[in-house]
Amino acid sequence: HLPPLKPTTVRMSMTQQTRNSQPYGASVQADIEAHIKQFLTIKEPLAVFEPMHHLVFNAPKTTVPALCLAACELVGGQRHRAISAASALLLMEAATYTHEHLPLTDRPKPVVKNHVFGPNVELLTVDGIVPFGFELLARSDDGENSERILRVMVEISRAVGSGGVVDAQYRKTMDTRSDGEEVCHVEEIMRVVEKYEGELHSCGAVCGGVLGGGSEDEIERLRKIGFCVGMIQGMAKRGFNEGNEVNEARNLALQELKFFKDKELDAIKILLNI
Amino acid sequence: HLPPLKPTTVRMSMTQQTRNSQPYGASVQADIEAHIKQFLTIKEPLAVFEPMHHLVFNAPKTTVPALCLAACELVGGQRHRAISAASALLLMEAATYTHEHLPLTDRPKPVVKNHVFGPNVELLTVDGIVPFGFELLARSDDGENSERILRVMVEISRAVGSGGVVDAQYRKTMDTRSDGEEVCHVEEIMRVVEKYEGELHSCGAVCGGVLGGGSEDEIERLRKIGFCVGMIQGMAKRGFNEGNEVNEARNLALQELKFFKDKELDAIKILLNI
Repeated sequence: HLPPLKPTTVRMSMTQQTRNSQPYGASVQADIEAHIKQFLTIKEPLAVFEPMHHLVFNAPKTTVPALCLAACELVGGQRHRAISAASALLLMEAATYTHEHLPLTDRPKPVVKNHVFGPNVELLTVDGIVPFGFELLARSDDGENSERILRVMVEISRAVGSGGVVDAQYRKTMDTRSDGEEVCHVEEIMRVVEKYEGELHSCGAVCGGVLGGGSEDEIERLRKIGFCVGMIQGMAKRGFNEGNEVNEARNLALQELKFFKDKELDAIKILLNI
Repeated sequence: HLPPLKPTTVRMSMTQQTRNSQPYGASVQADIEAHIKQFLTIKEPLAVFEPMHHLVFNAPKTTVPALCLAACELVGGQRHRAISAASALLLMEAATYTHEHLPLTDRPKPVVKNHVFGPNVELLTVDGIVPFGFELLARSDDGENSERILRVMVEISRAVGSGGVVDAQYRKTMDTRSDGEEVCHVEEIMRVVEKYEGELHSCGAVCGGVLGGGSEDEIERLRKIGFCVGMIQGMAKRGFNEGNEVNEARNLALQELKFFKDKELDAIKILLNI
């Protein structure tokens, strides 16, 4: 039987770092990457592990893993309780990003991304990254939190799976013309943002809440707050920086945040761009 | 919190079926597919769930899920304890098969497989199948077996991941000429069979043993037996039906099976082609 994985030593709490005016996101990201690096070493077979290392640590950063840790702390949990879930989320997003940019015979020619590896290596590497994410999470069981971990796995499976990110990816494909330009209908874009950034952030917040020992009420509020964070981030990514939809999402989140009024909210507020 | 998934009603034990001279593999396969069908319904978005259904139930059948159930019964567990793991294994194998046959710009043109869906749909569908497998397994927690389920997840992640099937797939790619013909060096083929069929069957047997409540000793013996079953199946698939390697694997398995001498061995023996 495998020993449970020890969480990486976490240097100081998120809010302390913010107060010390370190760039908050960067430091959280570094902690999560350090945790992953403990277990994802470059080893034999190099043909497998070198691309895996590269694709995981060079995918664009998102705020989902940081939100997971922030949610854990918000419900009073120690940050290290959620570090494996945050790591799994980072891995899932790297996997998603890579497959999304894979050149396929029936996809328009990619315009942006430089590929270090060929499509075959990228495809197979991702097929290794996803189970590695679940493995990391499964091994973080310390004998007391196994039910919480299983619950988090269900949340992550749903967010990245057919009803979540995969659905959003289909929609994106259908909205893409053969020259690679995305057709921009605001409603359809919003639907993609909901299923993509919305559900992923929602999932990140719930995972943090579950592993931090939050109550069911707290977890459901975090689900809504996470969704709002995701909508704001997803809209910003697509150029909707301000506007009715953004304000609406921010107000909804602030409404739910009132419930946590005695708690340390700096981290979440940064993620809400407040 | 989600209620745990109820296992499908399992009609009769494997050995009874064998005695009734029903085709053993077919009936087991039907039970596992029935279990998956309970949760994988064709629903909206159809663009996602129709291909998912098709690719899962039309992938070639393997003996891995059946071995998982047989191992569970061998250690005295009721078959339904392992049905979710067997289902997850079937899903992982369908996913692996589909990605392996995906036409990519740097792969030789496929010779055999007819594709019902385009590469983009096949790629994304599989990205939904893998998390669905983990979800099915995570939801089979009845509150008492969560640690066993997590252990099984680690086993499955490793078998299908970078150190297992993905490694075998890389090796296969490297052995394939640009015209799609595989170069046949017996040693290299054996290495692929070990990492592919060998480790997958080994994993299937271990998962059944763990969920059936086997002792550590029983589980380690099942690991070896499973590996031998996989080697025999994998060699048979590649035309090595008899020969030194096959005999060696069969004898090794029989040696380990002596430990279970008072148990019902029919199911395992069928899988060993005895």
